[in-house]
Amino acid sequence: MSVDSQPQTDVLVIGGGVIGLAIGWRAAQQGLQVVIADPEPGLGATHAAAGMLTPIAEAAYAEREIFALGQNSLRRYPGFAADLQRSTGLGVGFRQSGTLQVAYDSDDLAILAETRQLQESFGVRLQQLSARECRDAEPMLDPAVRGGLLAADDGSVDPRRLAAALLQAAEGAGVRLVRQRVTEMVCTAGRAAGARLADGSVAPARWIVLAAGWQSAGMPGLPPGIAPPVRPVKGQIIRLRTTAAMTAAGLPPGLLRRTVRGIVRGCGVYLVPRDSGELVVGATQEELGPDTAVTAGGLWELLRDARTLVPGITELEFADAVAGLRPGTPDNAPIIGLTELPGLVLATGHFRAGVLLAPVTADTVADFLCTGVPDPLWRAFAADRWPGAARRLEEEVACR
Amino acid sequence: MSVDSQPQTDVLVIGGGVIGLAIGWRAAQQGLQVVIADPEPGLGATHAAAGMLTPIAEAAYAEREIFALGQNSLRRYPGFAADLQRSTGLGVGFRQSGTLQVAYDSDDLAILAETRQLQESFGVRLQQLSARECRDAEPMLDPAVRGGLLAADDGSVDPRRLAAALLQAAEGAGVRLVRQRVTEMVCTAGRAAGARLADGSVAPARWIVLAAGWQSAGMPGLPPGIAPPVRPVKGQIIRLRTTAAMTAAGLPPGLLRRTVRGIVRGCGVYLVPRDSGELVVGATQEELGPDTAVTAGGLWELLRDARTLVPGITELEFADAVAGLRPGTPDNAPIIGLTELPGLVLATGHFRAGVLLAPVTADTVADFLCTGVPDPLWRAFAADRWPGAARRLEEEVACR
Repeated sequence: MSVDSQPQTDVLVIGGGVIGLAIGWRAAQQGLQVVIADPEPGLGATHAAAGMLTPIAEAAYAEREIFALGQNSLRRYPGFAADLQRSTGLGVGFRQSGTLQVAYDSDDLAILAETRQLQESFGVRLQQLSARECRDAEPMLDPAVRGGLLAADDGSVDPRRLAAALLQAAEGAGVRLVRQRVTEMVCTAGRAAGARLADGSVAPARWIVLAAGWQSAGMPGLPPGIAPPVRPVKGQIIRLRTTAAMTAAGLPPGLLRRTVRGIVRGCGVYLVPRDSGELVVGATQEELGPDTAVTAGGLWELLRDARTLVPGITELEFADAVAGLRPGTPDNAPIIGLTELPGLVLATGHFRAGVLLAPVTADTVADFLCTGVPDPLWRAFAADRWPGAARRLEEEVACR
Repeated sequence: MSVDSQPQTDVLVIGGGVIGLAIGWRAAQQGLQVVIADPEPGLGATHAAAGMLTPIAEAAYAEREIFALGQNSLRRYPGFAADLQRSTGLGVGFRQSGTLQVAYDSDDLAILAETRQLQESFGVRLQQLSARECRDAEPMLDPAVRGGLLAADDGSVDPRRLAAALLQAAEGAGVRLVRQRVTEMVCTAGRAAGARLADGSVAPARWIVLAAGWQSAGMPGLPPGIAPPVRPVKGQIIRLRTTAAMTAAGLPPGLLRRTVRGIVRGCGVYLVPRDSGELVVGATQEELGPDTAVTAGGLWELLRDARTLVPGITELEFADAVAGLRPGTPDNAPIIGLTELPGLVLATGHFRAGVLLAPVTADTVADFLCTGVPDPLWRAFAADRWPGAARRLEEEVACR
């Protein structure tokens, strides 16, 4: 138990993706002693995330509550990014250039009209664009695009740079990073009290924050009924790059001026440009368990739909393709807050929105760790909102 | 001139692709002192080659002479591969499981019928297969495939393993590998006498073999009219991989039993399975100068056509995608033999067939270097078959 000799740890965060790193950083900034355990910080779902900050466009698929949480988190992003930049000198590629949602054919346009109704019922003001206005806004769009909706305040960030900055900021604020896998939660006297690491040692802490993404569900050592019902939802993305010749020809870095989300013959695809010249195309959504293979079919579908919307992508250089595992939940909303097990805080299940929701999750969890008062924002995201589901999953895990 | 202190070099081979490495190995086996100069042996066109040994299928695009040369080289392959295996213990993935040429729609079937006429005019016996026979031969083919031609004797090899084995065999036979770029041919008294290397030293030799692929054309120091008219023709390939689950389900490694070359709505695509489980899909053919970017459009076209022929590829894992530069010539045939410059032997311009033609090129060049007698096989591939073209290119190079 070599870690026992360390000074008293206030918080052990299990998981070093954007959620865990951000919580650790914010908690350390408030003076807490924090340890983050992750064998490969930043290399989970974060590594395969596109970094869209689009609560409005995501609202099409989500409940009012997650939309409000996303809006709340987006408002925190400028300060969050600036604070990271001040602490580390590292940029995270934050830009707030909007999202253009477009429809390819008339059926897609009907879907977009429904999307608009839903989004406006949430009180969002969207600018409706004709086909011509879409092309004025984004000249690289295919002339066939039928119409669009502009969400001017949406943003984006580079998740790999974000993870790198968070890691540096966290360590700069005094967080101790343990690059080991957690093999088991350790409970003492009915309270979460630490975690056993791959080397057999136990890291004790007053509070345990479980932020291990989809792997949170199968964490050994959790009492029955406590494991959050998260499952891996595979997503493949492709990173493309504009060439020097394109830049010389006056094309914007990443070919587009802003994030474009399209409906192409009923399929969703998004294209996220970055100032670095990257254009991220995503994402598949596959229920295949913990499989992270990039497949020929995944690449083909993404390229097919992206090329239909923006034919000019064919000239872009291929940088890489990766697959990540999003932590999906039964209602697509995250799980943030307490459980029946004292000493445990859940911060997982962020599904497609982990990067967007990192600031609000980190701020509210860090505040709770200091004050002991749960944030009212957590109410809609409580772990006990499907007690049956949690128990069923727990039983499945136990049967393996 | 630090290299001058080395023992007398009989042969300096400029270029360490499959052609240069095979020549160096065969010449050293015959007792010659050989130096091969290449900053990155095996990493040019060889690295992006699929390794089809299909003189029959290639005959559709080529002249009778290159078909005969390909047949000649294919006959040498079993011995060539066995000799490499004996010398190094390394396999090169050689298999002789045939090529199935298939047509996707009725227009493609008409093209295939023309191909058959041409191939049979060369004296090749091909087995014509109905749609049903195609699927019996290759159960993973799409049911829409209309018909095919089976060339039972065609083979394939893994070019990366071939380059690794050739490199080891060459060094084992006494070849000295100089991992430097050649900056200039050095001529003395009207004879090719050596080459200047990137470090400024000169490597002298009795014979210079120029086997630098597409870069042979721009070699500084060649007298006017001597540079071979080769140009870079970009080709992109994708390497896919069958999964453990597919193997467990009884699918053949690489999903197919043999190389499949398809005509899909007028476009050519090929799929080459390997015993390792790899399936290589190729290849684009692009006239873009010395550009080796893998592009979104290249990937998309290859995946589109391969998927049309063999829908099951969508489940394969993506391994990588690379682009190489084939040395193209005005008539698509290689340039092998002497020029007006004494001391120089050309072995370049192998275009799409470098891997296939390596054995016959290496054997005949090595024999010439020992005997001084040019091989009659070279007659159709002489450097002076387009004196005008060679001069024009030389002038273009001189104007830069």
